[in-house]
Amino acid sequence: MDKVNVAEKFTRFNEYWSPKIVGDLNDSHIKLAKMKGEFSWHKHDNEDELFLIIKGKLLIKLRDKDIHLNPGEFVIIPKGVEHLPVALEEVHVMLIEPKSTLNTGDVSNEFTKSELDRI
Amino acid sequence: MDKVNVAEKFTRFNEYWSPKIVGDLNDSHIKLAKMKGEFSWHKHDNEDELFLIIKGKLLIKLRDKDIHLNPGEFVIIPKGVEHLPVALEEVHVMLIEPKSTLNTGDVSNEFTKSELDRI
Repeated sequence: MDKVNVAEKFTRFNEYWSPKIVGDLNDSHIKLAKMKGEFSWHKHDNEDELFLIIKGKLLIKLRDKDIHLNPGEFVIIPKGVEHLPVALEEVHVMLIEPKSTLNTGDVSNEFTKSELDRI
Repeated sequence: MDKVNVAEKFTRFNEYWSPKIVGDLNDSHIKLAKMKGEFSWHKHDNEDELFLIIKGKLLIKLRDKDIHLNPGEFVIIPKGVEHLPVALEEVHVMLIEPKSTLNTGDVSNEFTKSELDRI
């Protein structure tokens, strides 16, 4: 059982939209992701998903509003809610979600990662 | 569904060792706590518990080692592991743990909070 330094973990990878597992918490994973550009619209039918901003800014578009996130802010996207993450510049994000969560939710496309690395 | 600014939430309360609920994530709560001084030894028989340091420093004593946490660092204390949080100065901590989690785990004492406020 060792502590995790979040900033140090972010030095270990450079790919965008490729979450890395950094912890197991009950039935959930703690993940870190670098994001840049526009992801794809999707939803998670069975999982709420937390986005905590570590560095940079993230826009999460919903069908009825936009959520602008800055460092030290988080939002929980409830299960079933369509969302589209957009990062104009690189953003570092901590994600907390059930281990069953697929990154692209109910859609399968070039962003889909069915196996995630641990770092 | 609104975003949460963690630093702003910490301005809303001053009590030590009295976690406040700031989010619902699947079967877990996101909580914020201010800590100062020494808590009590305890364990959570059924729940892993995540401590993420927002501000200040936290020592978590285990029976076999000490874990020194700084801002931007987290540790996950697995279910069943005895631990003692110690804060020489005030520390601001984000906790993520199942909704079933009692703050003092398997012991009941002056720190025990069976009902937590939402802020």
